This record gives sequence, structure tokens and C-alpha cells, in this order.
Amino acid sequence: MTDPRIASLEQSVHGLRLKTDPADLEHYGRDWTRRWTPAPLAIALPASVEEVQAIVRWANAHDVAIVPSGGRTGLSGGAVAARGELVLSLERMNKALAFDAVDRTLTVQAGMPLEAVHNAAREHGLVYPVDFAARGSCSIGGNIATNAGGIRVIRYGNTREWIAGLKVVTGTGEVVELNNALVKNSSGYDLRQLMIGSEGTLGIVVEATLRLIDPPPPTNVMLLALPSFEVLMQVFAAFRAQLRLEAFEFFTDRALHHVLAHGAQQPFDEVHPYYVVTEFANDEAGEAAALAAFETCMEQGWVLDGVISQSEAQAQQLWRLREGITESLARYKPYKNDVSVRISAMPAFLAQTQALLGEAYPHFDVVWFGHIGDGNLHINVLKPDDTPDAEFIAACEQVTKLLAEVLQRFQGSISAEHGIGLVKKPYLGSTRSPAEVALMQGIKRAFDPKGLLNPGKVFDAPPASAPMTAQ
Amino acid sequence: MTDPRIASLEQSVHGLRLKTDPADLEHYGRDWTRRWTPAPLAIALPASVEEVQAIVRWANAHDVAIVPSGGRTGLSGGAVAARGELVLSLERMNKALAFDAVDRTLTVQAGMPLEAVHNAAREHGLVYPVDFAARGSCSIGGNIATNAGGIRVIRYGNTREWIAGLKVVTGTGEVVELNNALVKNSSGYDLRQLMIGSEGTLGIVVEATLRLIDPPPPTNVMLLALPSFEVLMQVFAAFRAQLRLEAFEFFTDRALHHVLAHGAQQPFDEVHPYYVVTEFANDEAGEAAALAAFETCMEQGWVLDGVISQSEAQAQQLWRLREGITESLARYKPYKNDVSVRISAMPAFLAQTQALLGEAYPHFDVVWFGHIGDGNLHINVLKPDDTPDAEFIAACEQVTKLLAEVLQRFQGSISAEHGIGLVKKPYLGSTRSPAEVALMQGIKRAFDPKGLLNPGKVFDAPPASAPMTAQ
Repeated sequence: MTDPRIASLEQSVHGLRLKTDPADLEHYGRDWTRRWTPAPLAIALPASVEEVQAIVRWANAHDVAIVPSGGRTGLSGGAVAARGELVLSLERMNKALAFDAVDRTLTVQAGMPLEAVHNAAREHGLVYPVDFAARGSCSIGGNIATNAGGIRVIRYGNTREWIAGLKVVTGTGEVVELNNALVKNSSGYDLRQLMIGSEGTLGIVVEATLRLIDPPPPTNVMLLALPSFEVLMQVFAAFRAQLRLEAFEFFTDRALHHVLAHGAQQPFDEVHPYYVVTEFANDEAGEAAALAAFETCMEQGWVLDGVISQSEAQAQQLWRLREGITESLARYKPYKNDVSVRISAMPAFLAQTQALLGEAYPHFDVVWFGHIGDGNLHINVLKPDDTPDAEFIAACEQVTKLLAEVLQRFQGSISAEHGIGLVKKPYLGSTRSPAEVALMQGIKRAFDPKGLLNPGKVFDAPPASAPMTAQ
Repeated sequence: MTDPRIASLEQSVHGLRLKTDPADLEHYGRDWTRRWTPAPLAIALPASVEEVQAIVRWANAHDVAIVPSGGRTGLSGGAVAARGELVLSLERMNKALAFDAVDRTLTVQAGMPLEAVHNAAREHGLVYPVDFAARGSCSIGGNIATNAGGIRVIRYGNTREWIAGLKVVTGTGEVVELNNALVKNSSGYDLRQLMIGSEGTLGIVVEATLRLIDPPPPTNVMLLALPSFEVLMQVFAAFRAQLRLEAFEFFTDRALHHVLAHGAQQPFDEVHPYYVVTEFANDEAGEAAALAAFETCMEQGWVLDGVISQSEAQAQQLWRLREGITESLARYKPYKNDVSVRISAMPAFLAQTQALLGEAYPHFDVVWFGHIGDGNLHINVLKPDDTPDAEFIAACEQVTKLLAEVLQRFQGSISAEHGIGLVKKPYLGSTRSPAEVALMQGIKRAFDPKGLLNPGKVFDAPPASAPMTAQ
């Protein structure tokens, strides 16, 4: 028997496309985490801002929780619908709406995949510079909701830097247009900035105006082999001093092992414990500077081997060693940490974390990689085939508790770029103080007084003595 | 007889420095606007975060409103204390606290003047790139409170881009540390971003961690004479296409007239209606590209004359023609508009605004200048000596109403960089919708439930049916 609320929603939002098949509920009810059993009420697929608005108003009238949904490539459970929520998928709102050559902006609907944004920008001879491996499946709305980072943050910053304006439907169904692509606007609180990274808990991003730039000059890619963790920051400093880096990514031999097993090509004859992929302009100055930095590092013993791309094809091959990691690990249901500290704190933090994990995970395969130039480290613990899911997660959570304590001492973040969602929520307190969480709850009340947008994500609603609905 | 609250404050915050002399009340009770009669309760000059916190807690216990106060160079009345508020001046908290060479950050107290920040950065061989004429008197805390812009936004963005972390005392006296200088941090709402541009209504910034950069390469400055407003955007496009611009500022013959009367040197033999000052790297490529752009503009008739700096002294002389404007106008008590639109909307907006002001102000001296590459226009209407203040302001407000209507049609902003404060508050609705203002009021409640921080600035408290104290 169908839930009577579905008929009510159909009546309220005439012509709304809805899905209720069990296969759809499962597909749209989860993201790339696999920890929760999807159980949404239904999937709404609006085709316009007006339909989004009408859905939110209906949800307010009937007290139905909504999970805004993009490409569901998230790794923190931010788009999971496991408690009877209505999934509001933006996937049909996936078009480019406007391009302005003078402002150099592209206005798109929130459901547009990142790769389609890249292509649309390129059609106008420009570039949207945020990039990461999930580009084909993730949506720009989801990128905004988590302030997505990726492989070029060191050069171009996070998604936040590229958002000139947002159109948002708030928790009460109001449509607000935030910043209107102005370069300068000191007219009260910048609600656009507040929306970025709010993980669908304050409003539903329905449109975004993105800043574009000229295509960067052609680049070279270099792969370096390192003898130890300790020299990593020295190598980074040597390259940063000489070059304007477009990327500086590191990974371990365990990461390489899995990518090779997944079909990538061995880059060196020997196996080395640590690797770096870096990218920089391939003009004469760039190549000479890179070779100078490389030689310095070889002389110091910080680098054991290296290769520089001679063609676009080889550059892609080298990048695949880094970008293929996540995919190659997927079958092991990895438990993921995505942490950050200040760049200056990185050496001490790495040392403490390495010691902690070496002791805590003697029996698990632990794969490290990260955006070292941004202070961002990814730690993936692989589940042994014979360990049950629940047991494995419980063991990992114990270690995350210890890791969170280390992070707190370093004033780091439990989520550098994945967002808090459900997965990191128990550890939010390592990064944000109780006073900050209370402020966030207060802001949530202003945008979503009934607490219907992505409830339970990022933080819990305040206790009953200060109910979400009391204004 | 002294107000008994002063004794109470002295008792509560032992050793707090307080000023209550009439001259001090007048000095600290106003900013660069001269529209309100200063009438603060007293001036508190805390020397530490703990003292700031104690003052705010005392204010909460006794329902005393607080006006946070920096250099009071603001032009919107954001730091005016005309209703018996306690002025909380940060001027004694003016020291650099820490520098980190790896993170390239400088941590300073909020009362540090911008010029002192520049100097402190330079001592470490680095640069804090936000800059404007009030650098000697304005404080970094005030810069953050208004997301200050200035003359290099086209190259370096607003203050927002350079804030790696903030320490803030909220309206309830909680100390929160926001972002801790992390490059990547997706752990809930970015309250740091929310604080930037909030004009002291959400919390008191007590410390800031600023990002620094390498010194830019040496630059050339070029002054251009233009025949009309209509060609301004063409000249901008021609220069932007060829050069990485560090600045692109325009002003009118009326502006030049006042700067020359104030002692600057006439740049050309003839008088021209419009001028541009632009700055760019003075390497070989830069100078050649600038000359190419200049020639194109001359051929098209967009530029009538030009001069390029041959020395640092001459560069400063040319800059003085633009930077001296505000000071040269001060004695005329100018009524200021500081508006912005999208760059692409600039030509049509300029045409409509010019027509409107030509009709509305036939008898006033109107001086235009602005950061044209950011879509930001400053309109200064000079008060004739024989017109009483109130009459003059009333006449100008009539015109601002019309200007606000034009702005609203263009989805522009009534305040590009000065902030809303008291001066622009009546026109906030031209830029922000009622739904947005309601969201701002809700956010204010979360940070400052009793509404004690800079009350009446930016927006009014919501009506009594939803009192500020109801949580």
C-alpha cells in the first residue's frame, strides 16, 4: 500500500515526477557510503525552481523531511535517506542557463554534473578550474553543498572561490538570490558564503553562477619517488619555492599497489615507499625550475627517482596513478578519514598520526594519500573480506576517536573536503566548539525553522527544551 | 553626575580603562560620517580578549548596547554611537601576535591599523595586498567588519580573500575561534565568512590571521585621458585583454579639479572630461602590452592623451590624483553613494545613472570616481556652503531613492564596500529581499540574542511580535 502522503504531494505539485519503485528508493536513498540502508519515502524529481519551492512548501505543511540530492558521490552520508525522508533529486535540473563573456560567468542549474560544467565553460574558451575524480557523476549543487576541493586547490582554491551567485530555496520555501554575481557587495551578511558548505541543511541550491577563467598554460606532470614520510614537506617546499604549482599530491606504496592491481602501469623499476605527483606550467622556465628542484631533492636524498611527462598521454598516465586510487579501493569498502591541519603543522601531525595508526591498525591495510600542499590527508582503511561490516566499522571508529584527539590538539579539521554528513558527525566536536555548534543550530533555525532540510546531518537538532520549531 | 552603570562596569571588569570626558565621547562616538551627534555612555578600551569578553558579559547582565570601534574611518555610520551605547574601542589591541613562514600567515589583534599590518608583513619579506587611502587610520578589525575593498580588488579581491582565521567574541560573550588558518575545512557552516562584512552586529573580531603573499613585481602606472563615459568600458576591455592589471581606477574632471585645488600637480596641458589610472607589471612584456593597448585606444579615439610613470616618484604622483580625491572633498561634507553592478551591466547602468543625476542635481557639484573594473562606482555630491546640512541631506536622499530604484533593476548593490551601517539602511531593500533581511535577523538572534551588538546598524530589529530575546 502506498503512503497517502505521496498522493498528497502529487496533488499539491501538479505534474511532479515521482519515483517509488524499490530499486529507485535504494538507488536514490544512498551516496557512495554504504553504511545505511536506504529507506526514503519517495523520490521527487522537480524540473523547475517553482516545483522545488512547491515541494518544500508541501513538506512544511505535512512535516516531511527532505534530503536534497545531487550526484550522490558524497563520502560522508550527507545525501543518505534512511529515515523515510523525501529525496529531492536535482538531476533533471541539469542545464546551463546563461553565459556572460564580460563577467566571465556561467549560470547553471544545480543538477549539472561537474564534467558538463567543464565542457560548457570550454565551449566559451574558458575554464571552470575546480576538478576531481568524481567529475562525471557529481553535481555542481553537491560541490557547493560541501565546498568541494579536489586536486587543484593548491592553485585555484575550493569551490567557494568560484561562486559568484546562488539561487536558493530555503527551508520555508522562499526563493532567495544571493549576491547576483557582484564582485563587490557589502550589503549585510553574505548568505551565499553561508550556503556554501552547509550540506543541504539550510536551503536547496537550485542555480549557481560560476566564475570562469582563461585556460591555464600547458602543463607538465612529474612523478617523484620518496624514501620516507619525513622528507615530504621538504620536497614540497623545494618545489613550491621554484614553481607555481598546479597540483602537488602524494600517495603511498599501498595506494600504488591497488592502482596497479586495477590496471595502471608501473612507473619505476623499483618499489618505493612514497610518491608525489606534481603539475606545473611547461614553459621553458617551468621545466628548468622543476629540474632544478628535482636535482636539489636528489642531492639531499629526499627523492630517489623521478619521471617527467613528455606528452599529454604520459601526463594522463601519471595522473591515473593518483586519480585511480579511490576507484581501486572501492571494492574493499574502505573506512575513510579526510582530515586537515595547517600546512606548518603537517610534519608533526603526520608523525603522530603515523605512529597512532601503525599501532592501532596492525592487521588492516591502510592506504594514505592526499593534497599535501593544502594540509589535507586522506586515510583509507580497507576492510578484510572476512571481517563483518559492523565489526570493521566499530574497530575503525575507535581509531577515529584517537585521531580526532590528535586533530584537536593541532586545531585541525575532521573533514577537509568531504563534509560532515552522518559519518563525521560524532567527531564534529574535535573541530568545532560547543559554542560554534550552538551558533550553527541557531542559524539552522533561521533558515529552516521546522528542521525539515537534511535533518540529522552535520549536527543533531538541539534538545527538546529548545525545539527546532520554537521561534 | 556620572551614570551609575559606569561604576558598575568598573567593578565588573577590574582595571578596565574607561574614558568619559566629553571630548572623548565626541571623538569616539562618531566615524567619518558627520550626520549624527555622538552620545555614547562611555568609551571602554580593553587590552585583552578576556576584557572584551568581560565587557560583553557585563553588557548582557545590564542590557547595555555596545558599538565595536576600530579606526572609525567608516563612511556609513557603522561605528556611530549616538544613542547612549558603550563604545568598545579595540585601539589598544593593536599588536602583531604571530607570524608563520610556512603557512605565510600573520596573526594580529583587531585594532592594528592597516598600514601597520602592511609594515609587519614587509618585515617578513611578504605582502598583505588589501590597500586603500585610509590605511594609516583604519583598523584591520574594521576592514573585516565591512569586507573592505579598495584600489587593488581587481587583482587581489576584497578583505574576505585574505582572512585565514578569526577570533571573535559573540553577543553572549563566548569566544569562538573560526577556521584556525586551515586551507581546507568542510566541517559545518563557515562562520568566519559570516563574520566578514557583518559590521559588528554578530560579534566583536578580536584577532585575525591574515594570509600574506610574495611581493608583486615592480609596476608601472599609466594615466589616461578619455573623451566620454561611453568609451570607459572599451578602454577597460582593451587593457584587460593585454595586461594583468593591478588596478584600474577612473575619475572625472570634477574630481581632478578638487585634487589639484588641494595641491596635486596638473598631469596634462589640456583639461579632459574623464581619467583612468591603471597599474601593471613593468617587465618588458607589460610595458609593450600597455603601449599596444594605449595605441589601440588612441586610434579608436577612446583615449585622448596618456602618460606612463618613469620612476617610483612619478608613479606616486599619478596615484595621488586618484587617492587624494576623498581627502580633497572632505571639507564639502560630501554625500556619498558607493554602488556596484555586475561588470557587464556597467555601461547601461552608467548611462542611466548619469542621466538621472544630471537631472536630479543640476545645482550641486557631483564628483564621480570608482573601481570600474570591479563594477564599483563612487558618487560624491558636495554640499554648497550656503545650504544647511539637513536640507542638503534631504535633497540627496531623494536622489538616492531614485538611484536605488535603478540599482534594483540592475540587481546591483547599494553598498559595494562601505557597508550599510546607518547611512544606507533605508535603501537595503533595493539590494536584499525581505526574505534575506528576515534570514539576517534570524542569524543575528543566534549570535546576539539580546540584540546588544551595534543595534540599529545594517537592519532594524524585527518587530515586537518576534522580540530579539525570544529564543
